[in-house]
Amino acid sequence: MRTRAAVAIEAGKPLEIMDVNLDGPKAGEVLVEMKATGICHTDEFTLSGADPEGLFPAILGHEGAGVVVDVGPGVTSLKKGDHVIPLYTPECRECEYCLNPKTNLCQAIRSTQGQGLMPDGTSRFSTLDGDPILHYMGCSTFAQHSVLPEIALAKVREDAPFDKICYIGCGVTTGIGAVINTAKVEIGSRAIVFGLGGIGLNVIQGLRLAGADQIVGVDLNPSKKAMAERFGMTDFVNPSEVEGDLVPYLVDLTKGGADYTFDATGNVQVMRAALESAHKGWGESVIIGVAPAGAEIATRPFQLVTGRVWRGTAFGGARGRTDVPKIVDWYMDGKIEIDPMITHTMSLDEINTGFDLMHEGKSIRSVVVY
Amino acid sequence: MRTRAAVAIEAGKPLEIMDVNLDGPKAGEVLVEMKATGICHTDEFTLSGADPEGLFPAILGHEGAGVVVDVGPGVTSLKKGDHVIPLYTPECRECEYCLNPKTNLCQAIRSTQGQGLMPDGTSRFSTLDGDPILHYMGCSTFAQHSVLPEIALAKVREDAPFDKICYIGCGVTTGIGAVINTAKVEIGSRAIVFGLGGIGLNVIQGLRLAGADQIVGVDLNPSKKAMAERFGMTDFVNPSEVEGDLVPYLVDLTKGGADYTFDATGNVQVMRAALESAHKGWGESVIIGVAPAGAEIATRPFQLVTGRVWRGTAFGGARGRTDVPKIVDWYMDGKIEIDPMITHTMSLDEINTGFDLMHEGKSIRSVVVY
Ligand SMILES: [Zn+2]
Ligand SMILES: [Zn+2]
Ligand SMILES: [Zn+2]
Ligand SMILES: [Zn+2]
Repeated sequence: MRTRAAVAIEAGKPLEIMDVNLDGPKAGEVLVEMKATGICHTDEFTLSGADPEGLFPAILGHEGAGVVVDVGPGVTSLKKGDHVIPLYTPECRECEYCLNPKTNLCQAIRSTQGQGLMPDGTSRFSTLDGDPILHYMGCSTFAQHSVLPEIALAKVREDAPFDKICYIGCGVTTGIGAVINTAKVEIGSRAIVFGLGGIGLNVIQGLRLAGADQIVGVDLNPSKKAMAERFGMTDFVNPSEVEGDLVPYLVDLTKGGADYTFDATGNVQVMRAALESAHKGWGESVIIGVAPAGAEIATRPFQLVTGRVWRGTAFGGARGRTDVPKIVDWYMDGKIEIDPMITHTMSLDEINTGFDLMHEGKSIRSVVVY
Repeated sequence: MRTRAAVAIEAGKPLEIMDVNLDGPKAGEVLVEMKATGICHTDEFTLSGADPEGLFPAILGHEGAGVVVDVGPGVTSLKKGDHVIPLYTPECRECEYCLNPKTNLCQAIRSTQGQGLMPDGTSRFSTLDGDPILHYMGCSTFAQHSVLPEIALAKVREDAPFDKICYIGCGVTTGIGAVINTAKVEIGSRAIVFGLGGIGLNVIQGLRLAGADQIVGVDLNPSKKAMAERFGMTDFVNPSEVEGDLVPYLVDLTKGGADYTFDATGNVQVMRAALESAHKGWGESVIIGVAPAGAEIATRPFQLVTGRVWRGTAFGGARGRTDVPKIVDWYMDGKIEIDPMITHTMSLDEINTGFDLMHEGKSIRSVVVY
């Protein structure tokens, strides 16, 4: 079939909107009609050329929501008409990782996914001239139709709006999951969130959901304060307004250090500050942000020997097929908010505008509605 | 009263054996007749002058075992004749730290202990001329009699030999506790231990006790192999004999990385290798060794984002008054071994010989028997 897609032809160039060929689903695969997709910093990271593992030409996008149109042989858990959210971290429920309760990093299709291919080692996308176009993160949601592995699709309720729940496919789950699955924050905890972009806001609402007593937000941009307060932030700290060092200021503000700290900046200096502002004896610091290639974190080992724990999270520690439908329920039940974070919507033809808004810092999340 | 002690007069000089004055126990304090004390790298770290927080003159030593001779007002948990092990990490059971199940770092007497003083801010030791001599780590076991806070003494069974169980006051509990309390190693785990000195051997026997399936020991000194095997090591790796990089070699040897890794070297490069040889998705690395002042650990944050956890431990995460008596039971029941690690015994007059043996790498543990 033919479908319409925004294609990343090469690094550093705007996406090109064009018709492409899409082969039907093979065994274990599912054809999805995309209804909406978010535009994420990770797409930008790849499109800009900064991602050393980026491949071109490819159809980017990984924050989608849509409807099943067709299924390949052997697909048992999904049928035509099901509403789904694509998962860049799949959940096969059979690999060594899926069977270990300590991790969500299913490895079933990792190597082909990293090469921009379906599990059989080929691509379903091609140009009208027949040249292959690569998949991206196993999702390729910047196309009106896409083919995905069955294990990379979460089935969700049908009354949830696509243009909001698409964000659960990445930022919402990453931020809330970092709190609930990775840190396992307890009621009454004190926490610090570094970076009040989309991920940081979702960490904040995850902390509110988990019953944290103190939720400190740290950002150099004071315009982030109002929105963060709306999601549950109790204290705002602008490092440029702190006299002296930031870490002792935060330790004092949290009565000895925070029980949990989260880096949502990707800056390795901030990651260090996040660790060191965790409480002696039991404070845990979670790295969410993606650092530039080659950047390293550092600290004195004394920080760990005196009881701090340093960990990281990917996709919020969530197992997508199991956890994403629950988070959709939380949204529909009003336990979490998404609507205020979707600041812009646009058509696929306008997708490059979404990247412009991101560069200009004007959007929390732009969503393409098909 | 007068007692005999090995006094650290100044950094870098041998200990001087002399008679000193010892005031009796004040409120909440206990007078202990020391029966044995180990000589530890931590004593050497301070005596050498490398410890930036070292104070002189002081009576060092923190790995003791002895008998209660007298108790001060208000002491309720100990009486004359009780057998005790001094605790450099006390357990008051009342402070914010003792009441938090995530930590063992009781802070009740931390500031005075760090200044070489009893909790009332004074020292019980003085020269025969009346000049004060400082306490050390709240223990000062290099004296035939010492005064300690009640909360810094674990009461132990009376049939346990002092010259062996004194080592439970430091290395045994640190190594075994790192496995059991800090890492919480499960039956069937794969583990790597970096550094096969006294702490490393105790980590190994902790792993055996916890039911680990694979226990890899890493040391540059091949003479460590036989003893480590006796304590449960299943695989020995000498980094100088590995072709190529050590980390991929260890990841391969442990079928994808170890579930738990332990640094018992204090070398920050080794700490990094320990983290990076932990398994993707769930591997945890525990820092036990004390690094030189100012040294920093580093890694790419990707190591944590893909599921590895970096933590540290002090006194094996043990709460001394509660856990040390249990470890004495384990020794008496044959669950753990100590005897082969006590390679040398000597009198207090010969204590400097114990430091010489340590420098020459000839001892695992030297013990002074009073
Ligand atoms: Zn899997
Ligand atoms: Zn994303
Ligand atoms: Zn010691
Ligand atoms: Zn305490």
